[in-house]
Amino acid sequence: MMAEWKDCINDLKGVVLDICGVLYDSGEGGGVPIPGSVEAVKRIKASGLKLRFCTNETQATRDKFVAKLQRMGFDISVNEVFSPAPAACKILKDRGLRPHLLVYDEVVPEFADVDKSNPNCVVVGDAADNFSYKNVNEAFRVLIGLEKPVLISLGRGRYYKETDGLKLDVGIYMKALEYACDIEAEVVGKPAKMFFQSALADMGVEPHQAIMIGDDLVNDVGGAQQCGMKALQVRTGKYRPNDEKHPTVKADGYVNNLAEAVDGILKHLGE
Amino acid sequence: MMAEWKDCINDLKGVVLDICGVLYDSGEGGGVPIPGSVEAVKRIKASGLKLRFCTNETQATRDKFVAKLQRMGFDISVNEVFSPAPAACKILKDRGLRPHLLVYDEVVPEFADVDKSNPNCVVVGDAADNFSYKNVNEAFRVLIGLEKPVLISLGRGRYYKETDGLKLDVGIYMKALEYACDIEAEVVGKPAKMFFQSALADMGVEPHQAIMIGDDLVNDVGGAQQCGMKALQVRTGKYRPNDEKHPTVKADGYVNNLAEAVDGILKHLGE
Repeated sequence: MMAEWKDCINDLKGVVLDICGVLYDSGEGGGVPIPGSVEAVKRIKASGLKLRFCTNETQATRDKFVAKLQRMGFDISVNEVFSPAPAACKILKDRGLRPHLLVYDEVVPEFADVDKSNPNCVVVGDAADNFSYKNVNEAFRVLIGLEKPVLISLGRGRYYKETDGLKLDVGIYMKALEYACDIEAEVVGKPAKMFFQSALADMGVEPHQAIMIGDDLVNDVGGAQQCGMKALQVRTGKYRPNDEKHPTVKADGYVNNLAEAVDGILKHLGE
Repeated sequence: MMAEWKDCINDLKGVVLDICGVLYDSGEGGGVPIPGSVEAVKRIKASGLKLRFCTNETQATRDKFVAKLQRMGFDISVNEVFSPAPAACKILKDRGLRPHLLVYDEVVPEFADVDKSNPNCVVVGDAADNFSYKNVNEAFRVLIGLEKPVLISLGRGRYYKETDGLKLDVGIYMKALEYACDIEAEVVGKPAKMFFQSALADMGVEPHQAIMIGDDLVNDVGGAQQCGMKALQVRTGKYRPNDEKHPTVKADGYVNNLAEAVDGILKHLGE
């Protein structure tokens, strides 16, 4: 099985990891590490390979999110993590956009420095329980009242897995608002090319020298491949067996978990 | 302006009216009649033209909905009203489907005779405040757990107007669940052809002998036209000036309100 993908990584210099569903499963109490993943991150770093994390996590500020992962034992720091909210803030400032936020309470502080008065766009993130009818309707009214409605979505995921089951992600509310206003959202975060490119540029690594490891076939694997990277899908997190028969997206390899992926990569590079 | 459309109605035998946004504006306390509409309904009936009402209303049982309209002064009876819930019940029974309901509390009694144990499909209606994240997620989990997910949507409207402003309609939650599960919903109600055809058959009138009057360009006007009927859009309810520049749907006429439409029709037929 390994032979199928490890021949592609002879030039490997950098690894990009998804976090939720790859490092840990989220859920009540913050979630739990996936067995072997704490050690796998350590092994990548010890190998000399560059490492960055690309997450669509928007239920906490990046600082708090990283602190949580550190408490679980992960060797990870804020400047290694690419997440949509800081990327969106940059876009908002560059374009003079003042957002109405439909996001999780805990991520609001990321937008502290952004002018939110008299909104001329809507930013939607994974708001979870904040996706009440009232709140979604309020975001809709802001959009429909604009001459040119601008909707920025922090990711376009369909669902993710928490310890108590599958949970709907930001993408479905993005689709809902797109349909309501007959518009197309601008996606910040995976699978947007620019998001992967930021992480690659930060490592100083070319796409063909990098591999992405994620549990989301379309947003992690498909997104990275469209950037020219190789990509593995782990059979943890939101992975479902049907992913391996997907009509348009095919991972360069499927592995049981991050530990197995890292084991395969390091053994191959050490040969 | 009238001349544009009244030449098309020489054979007119039947009228189909939308209710919300044409007869009345909904909202707190049940809503208020649109000026002139009570009298307009009376005039159609007195003229000898056949009359049916096609509504995507799914916030109450048909009985209660009609009783509310009667209290507002409308000459309307239950057997003149075509609404999605009774149509959906027939489909569920015919196909042995057991629904998980994501609907407004008040419409649940319409499904009293339908087996809802061990669900093998989801029925979504305009659930308004029942569209909490928890409830939408629950419907999603039912669908994603089915080998062949079946989603039945009571209409596909984007939004409607209540006295306190625009409100998101069932269509956006249909789109959200379609995207989440990568499926296509089956729509019962407008703009489904079968829905208009039921009303026409009940009147014993051919499509070219009938005219639809509605405030929703796509679901009322476009749906009726696809059935071979003529259709007018009223400038009440959810009407927006941009509707008159829609790229694909063009009404046979635009009128300020139902009273003006009926006035034009009856004057023309009386000539």
